[in-house]
Amino acid sequence: MRRRKAISRLAAAAGGAATTSSLLAAPAIAQGRRELKLVTTWPRDLPGLGTGAQRFADRITQGSGGRLRVKLFASGELVPAFDAFDAVSSGVADMYHGAESYWADKSPTFSFFSSVPLGLAANEMKAWVHHGGGQALWDQLSAQFNIKPFLCGNTGVQMAGWFNREINALDDLKNLRMRITHLGGETYRRLGAKPVSLPADEILRSLKEGGLDATEWNGPWNDFALGLQNVARYYYYPGIHEPGTAQSLGINLKLWNELGADDRSLISSAAIAENDVIHAEFQARNGEALKTLINDYRVEVRRLDPAVFRGLALVAREVVASTAGNDAFSSTVYRSFSDFREVNGLWTEISDQAYVEARARYL
Amino acid sequence: MRRRKAISRLAAAAGGAATTSSLLAAPAIAQGRRELKLVTTWPRDLPGLGTGAQRFADRITQGSGGRLRVKLFASGELVPAFDAFDAVSSGVADMYHGAESYWADKSPTFSFFSSVPLGLAANEMKAWVHHGGGQALWDQLSAQFNIKPFLCGNTGVQMAGWFNREINALDDLKNLRMRITHLGGETYRRLGAKPVSLPADEILRSLKEGGLDATEWNGPWNDFALGLQNVARYYYYPGIHEPGTAQSLGINLKLWNELGADDRSLISSAAIAENDVIHAEFQARNGEALKTLINDYRVEVRRLDPAVFRGLALVAREVVASTAGNDAFSSTVYRSFSDFREVNGLWTEISDQAYVEARARYL
Repeated sequence: MRRRKAISRLAAAAGGAATTSSLLAAPAIAQGRRELKLVTTWPRDLPGLGTGAQRFADRITQGSGGRLRVKLFASGELVPAFDAFDAVSSGVADMYHGAESYWADKSPTFSFFSSVPLGLAANEMKAWVHHGGGQALWDQLSAQFNIKPFLCGNTGVQMAGWFNREINALDDLKNLRMRITHLGGETYRRLGAKPVSLPADEILRSLKEGGLDATEWNGPWNDFALGLQNVARYYYYPGIHEPGTAQSLGINLKLWNELGADDRSLISSAAIAENDVIHAEFQARNGEALKTLINDYRVEVRRLDPAVFRGLALVAREVVASTAGNDAFSSTVYRSFSDFREVNGLWTEISDQAYVEARARYL
Repeated sequence: MRRRKAISRLAAAAGGAATTSSLLAAPAIAQGRRELKLVTTWPRDLPGLGTGAQRFADRITQGSGGRLRVKLFASGELVPAFDAFDAVSSGVADMYHGAESYWADKSPTFSFFSSVPLGLAANEMKAWVHHGGGQALWDQLSAQFNIKPFLCGNTGVQMAGWFNREINALDDLKNLRMRITHLGGETYRRLGAKPVSLPADEILRSLKEGGLDATEWNGPWNDFALGLQNVARYYYYPGIHEPGTAQSLGINLKLWNELGADDRSLISSAAIAENDVIHAEFQARNGEALKTLINDYRVEVRRLDPAVFRGLALVAREVVASTAGNDAFSSTVYRSFSDFREVNGLWTEISDQAYVEARARYL
């Protein structure tokens, strides 16, 4: 900071010619006069996503050497969580940190850049977006709303959820009152369940009092923090509804186009760095929390019966395909996503999946 | 550039007092005069690692708005590949991009921050380093050599390799002449194989002429580029020797300590961003190359028999444990790594592994 002041003092001392004032104009933007408003869809400092959004902001403020300053507004501080997209689109805010599935009412195609049932795992998602054609399609989609998007976090595979009823066959989903939303909710609905949408505090009460039979939330880390182990008995895996939920950073496109190469590079590096670090934190903390749930809370962790997963999978394919069937562009995204999943999925199977499965026998 | 020149002209015009000259010293560094030499252990523009190192360099040069400029020297351009560590340690270069296992002759403990047999998969590695205590231990290790390290890439799980002999039982490893080095080589050696170290061009000739029975290299993308499908018959998975090989960025520690918070933040964001993007590229390209190998080259992709994997795993545990047994600090790293693998591995099993396994049945 002291250095920058020194420069302006020197510049001021150098006199008031027209040349000097035009020379000063550019540094005025470059030297920390630009503040960027970041709105998030999370409570302030929510462990994982809220703290990750703050780290993203700090990376830009610090890394720019003062030419950019990012001010974070948590959900409700500048606009409500689900208004973040419109706020950035219209320029009320400059950037959002959220999840693309939240904008599914703008276009159902956004969900492909967050997570869809039976979709891409976290590593596949970043491979598709960074190196498999996903970014270009996403840019095209978001540009319709004056937004430039980046990947910026991933929760990893979410658990199937917490159940107070054993799920041994597809029939056990019939009339299951479950808190599950979006495309996952539609998948369960088609199998006879009664999906509902409830805020966090009501989920706990409803499960305890029996108004609700089951809920999905996230993974062990966030689920434990919410206290679901106190109100539900069985913890089923693997989840099929959100197999690698990506978070995203959206920037007002007009602003993005005005920024210099330096600012763009800095912002994209910061977003992608948090894609790595947020995902790493969920991976680390989910492991710790799972251990706590098993050892200290004696939670029954159960694998979904293959026949149940199969039934969910077959319906999920239909749900996702019909979501994408509305227009030519959506179909293009769906095809790119599905083709990538088919080819890349085989690699995941013979690399990480086969390795971890084999390793598990000796640990 | 023009702006910076203008500022120095203004500053120069402001006169020659002692105050001014001390004020100038700092801006001279802050305004693009600092060039950082980055040495890599890869050929220039080697797809994946060489191109990733260049992107890392560009992220800093661009993101800094000109205050830092990173000049990349590929292997042999400033120093030979394996001298990169010493070059940075001594200050001949400022940073290296390489793999920590290359410095195992300095301390065998470095291998834990690259990959060890039966070790962490890529997502677990970043979770351990970013959020599981790994970074602090790594900092402590590298500081002994005047280096500050960061994760900066991952190849993912490497294939077991290419074989011209069927491997159906542990006995088939007896007298197997295989190109495999480091701890993986030692693992195979203890099971009766004859591990050798050979440069890339000789691997091809030896496999073709029968002087070599097998080789590991990396994954489908790099293996296909080398042409191994033309000289070997069976392509086995999963590899146990390098289950998620991390690349790293090392910076001269004295330089790091002198840098301002802005430069440090920028460099660490750039390194971590490439941890994400390099890994994503291997994930994407390995999928494409695997498809090509199977469809166009009719390569026989085979899963290692569980009994063979088991035999390798039991020996690998001994090899890794004995590597780590030399001193108290090494033991601390080994314990942190092993404990993390045990706890976090269970999460990987019930999340990514279980999901991908279940999904595979419906794709």
